[in-house]
Amino acid sequence: MPEFRWPTRVYYEDTDSGGVVYHANYLRFMERARTEWLRSLGFEQDHLAAELGVIFAVRRMTVDYLAPARFNDLLQVSARVTQLRRVSMDFAQEVARAGDATPLCRGEVQVACLDSVRLRPRAIPQQLLDRVEEALGAD
Amino acid sequence: MPEFRWPTRVYYEDTDSGGVVYHANYLRFMERARTEWLRSLGFEQDHLAAELGVIFAVRRMTVDYLAPARFNDLLQVSARVTQLRRVSMDFAQEVARAGDATPLCRGEVQVACLDSVRLRPRAIPQQLLDRVEEALGAD
Amino acid sequence: MPEFRWPTRVYYEDTDSGGVVYHANYLRFMERARTEWLRSLGFEQDHLAAELGVIFAVRRMTVDYLAPARFNDLLQVSARVTQLRRVSMDFAQEVARAGDATPLCRGEVQVACLDSVRLRPRAIPQQLLDRVEEALGAD
Amino acid sequence: MPEFRWPTRVYYEDTDSGGVVYHANYLRFMERARTEWLRSLGFEQDHLAAELGVIFAVRRMTVDYLAPARFNDLLQVSARVTQLRRVSMDFAQEVARAGDATPLCRGEVQVACLDSVRLRPRAIPQQLLDRVEEALGAD
Repeated sequence: MPEFRWPTRVYYEDTDSGGVVYHANYLRFMERARTEWLRSLGFEQDHLAAELGVIFAVRRMTVDYLAPARFNDLLQVSARVTQLRRVSMDFAQEVARAGDATPLCRGEVQVACLDSVRLRPRAIPQQLLDRVEEALGAD
Repeated sequence: MPEFRWPTRVYYEDTDSGGVVYHANYLRFMERARTEWLRSLGFEQDHLAAELGVIFAVRRMTVDYLAPARFNDLLQVSARVTQLRRVSMDFAQEVARAGDATPLCRGEVQVACLDSVRLRPRAIPQQLLDRVEEALGAD
Repeated sequence: MPEFRWPTRVYYEDTDSGGVVYHANYLRFMERARTEWLRSLGFEQDHLAAELGVIFAVRRMTVDYLAPARFNDLLQVSARVTQLRRVSMDFAQEVARAGDATPLCRGEVQVACLDSVRLRPRAIPQQLLDRVEEALGAD
Repeated sequence: MPEFRWPTRVYYEDTDSGGVVYHANYLRFMERARTEWLRSLGFEQDHLAAELGVIFAVRRMTVDYLAPARFNDLLQVSARVTQLRRVSMDFAQEVARAGDATPLCRGEVQVACLDSVRLRPRAIPQQLLDRVEEALGAD
């Protein structure tokens, strides 16, 4: 699958008094990239919730913090599906400075498809599954 | 009205790379104090939403940043109702270090009562209005 | 002064369980726009701190919350200098949905120039003052 | 080691429009508990930075999201050292509702000791190491 990348600027809101990006905020950056990847495939999450009754929620994640990102850095956040199941997807993600391949942070993220009201596991909508498989096959 | 105070510790999550509390986070601290004040009067906001169908939302606020709070500071955040209307309340709030009256941040906050579903203005529930007036009278 | 605008997408991280953007997060959006406006004039804030020893900090702000922004909205955040002083600047800012002029949130923000180490007021660097005045004059 | 527990209330700031705690915010809750655990042993992190020149930074974490926490929940966040090394510590942490042992979220967190200025690995100060070992032995 061609790796998807999304740029994210580090603002004051993202940093902490250690002078670097606060560790929990890399999870935000990674979710922004997953959201934009889904949008790039033609899926808006507000429509998915309103029309198909599904939302996506992180079920499990492992994050490696390799080197700190700093205030005003322009980051590139990647998102690549590594496994596609009926009710969940696995992503491999990296955060790096724009123009520098050295990863600052690496994540493996399992995202589950849930019923948007009851928050119980639900099958990924077929049209989304098809579109992701098509994108995976395009690799 | 006796001023209500709520302690809040400054963690890394609250600071920015300037070494101080990020300016938007004082708004969180102030909301924590308003929430705990409401709880101290016997009102849980999840119950207010589920049973009476109302939520409270900030309609307007003015914030003065006087001096910075820093990592690991123990703060006291005050909340005092200065005006009570049928559909909104005004609060005066201050953030200071515990044991030090010098305010670091001051806010005037107008909070509106809204229908929890349609997010339209709605009268503050009578039992809450009565309880706040009683507390105001106790001053 | 020609109004500066910066697009911002609403992600889950920005919303709260009321289903709308959490009130403190509009302050983040406004700061992103001020930062990008400064960048558009040629000033990077990490360089300003490292080379000229100055940072900018919000000294006072008034925010009006007019209508809620929601998950997945694409917002436009404006920033316009309304007053320029030796040690501070005032901004008028608005948050609206892209392609819809109706403001959702309006802010008046006073930003002070501070010594980056001692956090005491300091004159805005002349080259920045000149550049802002030039931009103001271009209106 | 006797497990340390720290209470945390869920405010609007912690939730997202899915109606539950935003996934990245559990990392904040876990850090609050680790900070308070350190304080319970007599160590203030601002002093550790200023006097001993060390800070702690998350190096790696695995988080399992088991069930959602919701607005207004009172949570208990645990912190237990599972491994103590010269330059890092491993924690096992759980987030649960107060009075309910069912974990909502589980984390394994590796925290590294760093030089507070250069952000390079550094030995955990001996007095802290001794104190943690003493606490571990008290189990």
